[in-house]
Amino acid sequence: MKLYDQARAPNPRRVRIFLAEKGISVPLVSVDLGKLEHKSAEFTRINPRQAVPALVLDDGTVISETMAICRYFEAVQPEPNLFGATPLEQAQVEMWQRRVELELFLPVAAVLRHLNPAMAAMEVPQVPQWGEANKPKVLAFLEFLNGELADRAYVAGARFTVADITAIVSVDFMRAIRTEVPEHLTHVWRWRHVVSERPSMKA
Amino acid sequence: MKLYDQARAPNPRRVRIFLAEKGISVPLVSVDLGKLEHKSAEFTRINPRQAVPALVLDDGTVISETMAICRYFEAVQPEPNLFGATPLEQAQVEMWQRRVELELFLPVAAVLRHLNPAMAAMEVPQVPQWGEANKPKVLAFLEFLNGELADRAYVAGARFTVADITAIVSVDFMRAIRTEVPEHLTHVWRWRHVVSERPSMKA
Repeated sequence: MKLYDQARAPNPRRVRIFLAEKGISVPLVSVDLGKLEHKSAEFTRINPRQAVPALVLDDGTVISETMAICRYFEAVQPEPNLFGATPLEQAQVEMWQRRVELELFLPVAAVLRHLNPAMAAMEVPQVPQWGEANKPKVLAFLEFLNGELADRAYVAGARFTVADITAIVSVDFMRAIRTEVPEHLTHVWRWRHVVSERPSMKA
Repeated sequence: MKLYDQARAPNPRRVRIFLAEKGISVPLVSVDLGKLEHKSAEFTRINPRQAVPALVLDDGTVISETMAICRYFEAVQPEPNLFGATPLEQAQVEMWQRRVELELFLPVAAVLRHLNPAMAAMEVPQVPQWGEANKPKVLAFLEFLNGELADRAYVAGARFTVADITAIVSVDFMRAIRTEVPEHLTHVWRWRHVVSERPSMKA
């Protein structure tokens, strides 16, 4: 088994944190996105969608998509549980994972990909107006999340789950667009400090 | 239990098809998106993200996000299985569900929301250039999917799963952007004809 990875990209980081929380070690193979290695013929044979992370099982089967890889490991090693235990908790974790991904992670990525000249080869065509349109979405979601975190410790409930992994990676990813969590969002900051202390965050 | 729904919108349709496949009946409450009822104070109290579908359980707990609602019903009634049985199948279904959603469903939605003047109150601000940029993404993904469907009956493997639900709803949703699946994509057409025959498609 091996995991195609990139040290600084946010999606591979989500998988590395997930694996660290599970205590699972998988050999990493680094893909140089700056050199567009993920668009090479060789890597395209591994993942036709030309993206990392991609997990290759011992029989050669490839699983791509961050959340698909995480769910694979949740199924083969259920503990510690990160996707929810009861039907209701599973639904709530999925709901929050998706809210954070669709309304924070993807908007941060859109700002970066459509406004940074260094991303011109990665995002074709860049639409700067779309990058600009996503800036207020990022801040609006953080305001909403702050209200939610006033009432509970973690994004999807009383305990740490994969929704927190997507959220902390998204918030840290905001460095790439030179945006900081506003100071008045004290519940987001409290949550961020607690989550950032977890050993898995260094993965 | 009740499900906030809208007859013509694609996300509520995904949930209705899923429930029909499971043989589960849930009372529907229609939300008039044309009148922006989903942005009303009353509906915002139900789902602060102002979107349908939203499932309200008997104790008042709300689950929003299409896939979270589907996963809730998969957990409470596992058969017929729609999210995968083994760890590998679960990962493959999730991978394909996400590929279709991110690379077909969302691009179709972007074309509609950013280019149709009737969507101006729904999508603020509209960025027509972004709508245009998504048109080739839709066709490129259908080409890719056609190659995949040359080798297997359904989107994620040999049997019908939730990945097919997202895919058929996405393909049918292309009517809203006046785009048809190109005739030469014969495997997509064969798959579409087979899936469209399922009784759940009328839900």
